[in-house]
Amino acid sequence: MKDVIATSTPLKVALLGCGVVGSQVARILITQADELRARIGRPLELVGIAVRDLAKDRPGIDRALLTTDGEELVQRADVDLVIELLGGIEPARSLILAAIGAGASVITANKALLASDGGSIYAAAAEQGVDVYYEAAVAGAIPIIRPLRESLVGDEVLAVKGIVNGTTNFILDKMHTAGESFPDVLAEAQALGYAEADPTADVEGHDAAAKAAILASLAFHSRVRLSDVDREGITGVTLADIEAAREMGCVIKLLADCSLSPDGSIAVGVHPTMVPLSHPLASIPGAYNAVFIESRYAGRLMFMGPGAGGSPTASAVLGDLVTAARNRVRGAIGPGESAYSARGITPSGEARSRYYVSLLVEDEPGVLAKVAACFAAHGVSLQAVRQDAGDGGAGDRARLGVRTHTARDADVRATLAELEQLPEVGPGITVMRVEGR
Amino acid sequence: MKDVIATSTPLKVALLGCGVVGSQVARILITQADELRARIGRPLELVGIAVRDLAKDRPGIDRALLTTDGEELVQRADVDLVIELLGGIEPARSLILAAIGAGASVITANKALLASDGGSIYAAAAEQGVDVYYEAAVAGAIPIIRPLRESLVGDEVLAVKGIVNGTTNFILDKMHTAGESFPDVLAEAQALGYAEADPTADVEGHDAAAKAAILASLAFHSRVRLSDVDREGITGVTLADIEAAREMGCVIKLLADCSLSPDGSIAVGVHPTMVPLSHPLASIPGAYNAVFIESRYAGRLMFMGPGAGGSPTASAVLGDLVTAARNRVRGAIGPGESAYSARGITPSGEARSRYYVSLLVEDEPGVLAKVAACFAAHGVSLQAVRQDAGDGGAGDRARLGVRTHTARDADVRATLAELEQLPEVGPGITVMRVEGR
Repeated sequence: MKDVIATSTPLKVALLGCGVVGSQVARILITQADELRARIGRPLELVGIAVRDLAKDRPGIDRALLTTDGEELVQRADVDLVIELLGGIEPARSLILAAIGAGASVITANKALLASDGGSIYAAAAEQGVDVYYEAAVAGAIPIIRPLRESLVGDEVLAVKGIVNGTTNFILDKMHTAGESFPDVLAEAQALGYAEADPTADVEGHDAAAKAAILASLAFHSRVRLSDVDREGITGVTLADIEAAREMGCVIKLLADCSLSPDGSIAVGVHPTMVPLSHPLASIPGAYNAVFIESRYAGRLMFMGPGAGGSPTASAVLGDLVTAARNRVRGAIGPGESAYSARGITPSGEARSRYYVSLLVEDEPGVLAKVAACFAAHGVSLQAVRQDAGDGGAGDRARLGVRTHTARDADVRATLAELEQLPEVGPGITVMRVEGR
Repeated sequence: MKDVIATSTPLKVALLGCGVVGSQVARILITQADELRARIGRPLELVGIAVRDLAKDRPGIDRALLTTDGEELVQRADVDLVIELLGGIEPARSLILAAIGAGASVITANKALLASDGGSIYAAAAEQGVDVYYEAAVAGAIPIIRPLRESLVGDEVLAVKGIVNGTTNFILDKMHTAGESFPDVLAEAQALGYAEADPTADVEGHDAAAKAAILASLAFHSRVRLSDVDREGITGVTLADIEAAREMGCVIKLLADCSLSPDGSIAVGVHPTMVPLSHPLASIPGAYNAVFIESRYAGRLMFMGPGAGGSPTASAVLGDLVTAARNRVRGAIGPGESAYSARGITPSGEARSRYYVSLLVEDEPGVLAKVAACFAAHGVSLQAVRQDAGDGGAGDRARLGVRTHTARDADVRATLAELEQLPEVGPGITVMRVEGR
């Protein structure tokens, strides 16, 4: 390749953060140095690692590289590539902008930052003519950013649906297979290290929502922010829901759903969703992630793999690092933000889905007709109804399970509000989305 | 993005071939012109289509674009991008080299050409500083080239295993589900248009072998050619094999298997293989394709989607077209061939796999011990043995099904040769690889 300057001058790399992923990245930079050099055309040299605590034991990491002054590190004029693995908004945001300002390309896994303020980072990078790569921000090692940003760029993506949080998938999977309740499985996941001591970001869907915003931005060439995502966690999912899903031939998954609405706006949400067993996403086990894409020409695609963990995330970071380094060697830059289509966000009430509604009703003639009329009055069409006689535990009540055709969210909510007022309907109506059309 | 010259000057595109895929590409270039322009930063203009037959009816295609002189078309100095969809070696090879020589970037779906002579094309492109993209050459719309070429470039790929031929997957799937024989299902597939009148390229594994060579080249940063691929088709797969696989909890798939051997060489083969139902590849239905990747850091990834068809293939071609066009707009080029590691090819006898061997033996004492001793003498270790009494049809013979641990191919062949000589063993020993370790 004649244009590659075969030089021994290293490209200089700065690393921000040295936790599980960062220390793995640092180790691979050392152990795989020859391979990486051959793939890039020049060697990489790790010149500094910003950490909070200099004293912490970090096996295999040269202490001389450590600094607590990230600011100074990213502003070094000789640094070509900055890897940001701090997470959170600040100081990650300021350090990334400073790195870009100093002419470095940036590799980041920071979904929260990109979902809330990616626009200003992409704009700064475009202004400076440097790269921002972030494959590790969504679905760990699964290549999903690059396929959306490049492979499908000649197609028209209609929907992206993903299981993008391994912790909640592990919990829901265990609830299905072991029949254990949410609090029990959560405690177990925490003991195993699959869930954090404070599990809010995972179980309330914040983590998945950030990833949904990033996926929707790429899929629909628009800016979609975290605050645009209609979010619901899995803390309210009960074993009764799990059982109802099973009866319908479904499993419950926490689904990040980014779809084009009929008016061309973007509906983006994270919800516990009943997924039919025939759907490829239904069989994604344990802590795995998967992203399902429906596009106009390519049809239905699915990508699956480990969604988290030090090594898989490090793999994604290093793929981006080599790509950005190759760009440097050739004096090129990769694709920047593509937000030309500037689509609006579908208001949450306007979003469409199929729904499953479960309610307890008086077990007497005419009740089903009354309930059905209530759905009909709000324009919600029913696909299937199943009535089970009360089992004694619910007194003289029968459980009614109703599956709707695709309906507006606001219409379903209005139906539920009215159902709650019916004297024949007991308290505790539950509702859940059902994947499919 | 300040570096993008916002110009209305079109990038000129020439198309070689206007069959199912080509005509779909041409139509999308027209119907999606505004979207493509926004994504690239400049419009695309289709300036010519080389065809064999000018008179053929091509709905939606402007006849004025058609020419039978592909040579002249690709040598036009004003053409920026050439899409080659002719297939086969010549004239595709000469036209691609001429296009590169004239300074155009090339997008091709030509697996046969790339697998047999990709090296000279990549070298010519590097020499001229132009791009060669070929996402459509393997697994249709599934982004697999770009993930291997870029996303996993910081990782160490250990194995790539794929169902990369939809026709054979359809046939094997139907043999499993409907219990119909190979010739019957093949005739049906031909009637449905899933198989060609001359099905040799598909059913003998030539098509899958070309794709295996391309995948192995990318995964292992080496040049792997079609002639390096150890190839076996599915014409010999019987319903008895299907049944034996079922008894073992497996399905038979035509697997393209590219793996690193213990000595660092590349074992690349296409074989009908028993795949355990627990493996993600086992559930890939009908005409779908899927590629499974095992890498050191990312772990186990799988990509699935439609492996053929006009629209999916057009999607892959257009993704490459937009990428190559963006590179033109920025004066950049994408990643070239990476063959630095120049690994050797594992001789077919040295390749390792688990095997299933089925043989008919005299139903008398001592035979099993004799057979087992024969495997042991060649260093082939047995994982499981199952003996079924003869059902009358096989006379006084019993069927012996033997599953081995991972063994050298040559050792298994030597074992079989010796077994054939045993008086207690009947004719018609069958053998098949089993996926897994």
